[in-house]
Order: sequence, then C-alpha cells, then structure tokens
Amino acid sequence: MNDLDTILSVIENPTRRRILMALVREPHYPLQLSKELGVSQQAIMKNLDILEKNGLVESRKESSDRGPVKMVYRPTSEFTLTIDMRNGLFRATLSMPASVDDAQENRDMEFDEVRETLSEIDRQISEFDRLREEMIERRNRMMSSFMHGPIASELGYLERSIIYGMLNSPEHDASEVSREMGLRDDTTTKVVNDIENKCKDPKRVMRNE
Amino acid sequence: MNDLDTILSVIENPTRRRILMALVREPHYPLQLSKELGVSQQAIMKNLDILEKNGLVESRKESSDRGPVKMVYRPTSEFTLTIDMRNGLFRATLSMPASVDDAQENRDMEFDEVRETLSEIDRQISEFDRLREEMIERRNRMMSSFMHGPIASELGYLERSIIYGMLNSPEHDASEVSREMGLRDDTTTKVVNDIENKCKDPKRVMRNE
Repeated sequence: MNDLDTILSVIENPTRRRILMALVREPHYPLQLSKELGVSQQAIMKNLDILEKNGLVESRKESSDRGPVKMVYRPTSEFTLTIDMRNGLFRATLSMPASVDDAQENRDMEFDEVRETLSEIDRQISEFDRLREEMIERRNRMMSSFMHGPIASELGYLERSIIYGMLNSPEHDASEVSREMGLRDDTTTKVVNDIENKCKDPKRVMRNE
Repeated sequence: MNDLDTILSVIENPTRRRILMALVREPHYPLQLSKELGVSQQAIMKNLDILEKNGLVESRKESSDRGPVKMVYRPTSEFTLTIDMRNGLFRATLSMPASVDDAQENRDMEFDEVRETLSEIDRQISEFDRLREEMIERRNRMMSSFMHGPIASELGYLERSIIYGMLNSPEHDASEVSREMGLRDDTTTKVVNDIENKCKDPKRVMRNE
C-alpha cells in the first residue's frame, strides 16, 4: 500500500507532518487540528484528504451528544524511512514494523519511572544510531577508496558503473546486478573478471610499493 | 545550510533522487545524466538547479580537449534522515556525519574480499536497524499504554497533550516542555503534579486489582 515514493511525497509537506504528529498522539477532528496547529480548516481538510488517499490516515464518523456527527481522523500507517546520503553512497530504505503482540509494558509504574525508562530507551536508540552511522561511514570509505583507487580509475564510464553496482549490492551476483542495471549478463561478467584479474596482477602490487 | 524541511522537499522528487544516486557514484555533466537516466536534458537541468540552490550539489566548469567547456556536478551534502511513524510516535531526525579522517580502508584487497567485507558491513547495519526497531517499538508500546491507561484517559485534551509532551521528551524538564509547547510553566507543572499524585494514589492500585 505505502511505498517510499508515496510516503516521501506526502510527508515532505510540513503541515502534513504536523497533522501526523498530532494524530499519533490521539485521534482528532478537523476543527481540533485547525485550532491546535493554527492552520485554516480548509488547509487542514485538503491535507487530511491527501493523507487519507495515500493510506496514512483513516476517518470515521463519530456521533456526539451535542452537535452534528463529526469525522474523526487517526493514523493507519507505521514505518521507518531512512535516507543515507554521502559522497559515495545514496540509499533510501523503508521498513514496516513487524506486528508485535500488544504486551502491556507498564505494570504499575509511576510517572517518573515511565519517564526514566523512556529516557533510557532513547539513549539506547541514539547509541544504535551512532553505531549504524559508524558502519555507514566505514562502508562509504571502503567503497570510495576502491572506486578512486588505481584499478577502478583506469576503467571507462560503463565499467565503473558496473563495479560500483557490484560493490553497492555485495549480496548479489553478477547476473542479479546485470538485471538491476538493465545490462546483459556477459557484459557484467567480463568487467568483473577483468577487475578480478587486475586485482591479482603482481605488477599492481609492485606499482603500489 | 541543510535542514530537514529543505532536504525532504528536495528529495521527495524521484528524478532528483535518481540524479543524486548517479552523482554519489561519480561527478556527471548534464548530458551524461540525461542519457544515464533516460530523462530530457531540460528536466535534468531544472532538477540540478533545484539541487544546487538547496545546497545538495555543486557545479564546476571543466574544460575538455574537444568540444566546449562543460558544467560538471557533484554532491556536496552528507546526511542521514530518519522518519519514524507509529500509531503513538512521530519522529523526524536529521544527522550529519562527523567528518572522519579519510583513512584508506582497503590496503591491497582483492575484489572478492572488498565485496565480502561490504556484505558483512551491510549485515551489521541491518542488525543495528533491527535493534533500533525493537527499541522504537518498545518506546511506542510504553508511551501508548501509559496514554491509554486508566490515569491518562481521565484527563482532558490539554492535560493529555502535556503528559504526551513530557513522555515524548523524557530528557526535558517541565519548563523545557512548556517552552516547546508554548505553554506557561505553571500550567505544565500543575498537570504533572496531578498525574504524579494519581500514580501514587493507593485507590488506583486497588482498582486495578
């Protein structure tokens, strides 16, 4: 339902991000959002519409004791979207959380305890972000130094693209990378063989010494 | 220079993402990008312009032996952008990598070795992503069960917003959260005191038993 293209095009709008931020807290009706965000009801409605058409929120009619039936909006989509951009790496990933059983986390915790636990969780999230960051940097350095090294720099444009493709998807073999790049298998295989031979060439080792 | 709003508005466009993906591999001139991506030169120019104005790429004149001077584009921005959206959590973060010294990673590694190391790095990145995901889920469950628990559900709209704000920024004290929410300190403090007292109320424990 949700793909990366759709999600990016929807959440690039700051008002829509603010609407989502309010809706994840609790369901809202448009007038409430309009007051909460200081944005006209018309703009709220337009953006709720876009969010709903793209599967990020849903609306339900809710009757109240006084006044007419209201439309109440709540979020429906759950994801983590990550864009890594480096001089040497561009990666956009979208992951949907596995549905976890709705275990009650807090038995009878006091407010301070809940805050402390959340704070500890946030520290751990930052730590995982930092470790991930280190790995991304290492990956980028490794790829860049190969691509700017003596062997790859002797290649032509197409050959460099193929080698980059092979390094960028190290889990994929030559024919999978060919498919990803819309190339013929034998083109890729030839370039890979050439680079493998060059790497093994004893003259290169001497040149580097 | 780059903020989250700007970056999101620039990279939401799929053509611009494809341009960046090519540029991180190596600098390109517009005609090259046009051929590589199968997009008109006019569209490439328009998008390069947007990327450059927003500080994601830069252009340099480069003279060649034959033909006129060409503009060559290369990426200038480095970041990791993460959006976490759950029913209970919305978080957008932008981090710029600390500049690391440009250590050469690969001594004389063979192509297969480089690919294996990159593949191992990718496995580690996935593992950190998975661990981070678990923490995000735990955080979300913990906040949601407090917000939908017996105590918070007795609160009014403003009170719930304040409690949510306090849980969402567990590192911040009441006056920082007040500032973030544009509220008076004493409003926040009163709500927090109330909820702390309710948490400690022995009647609540009995009700839950």
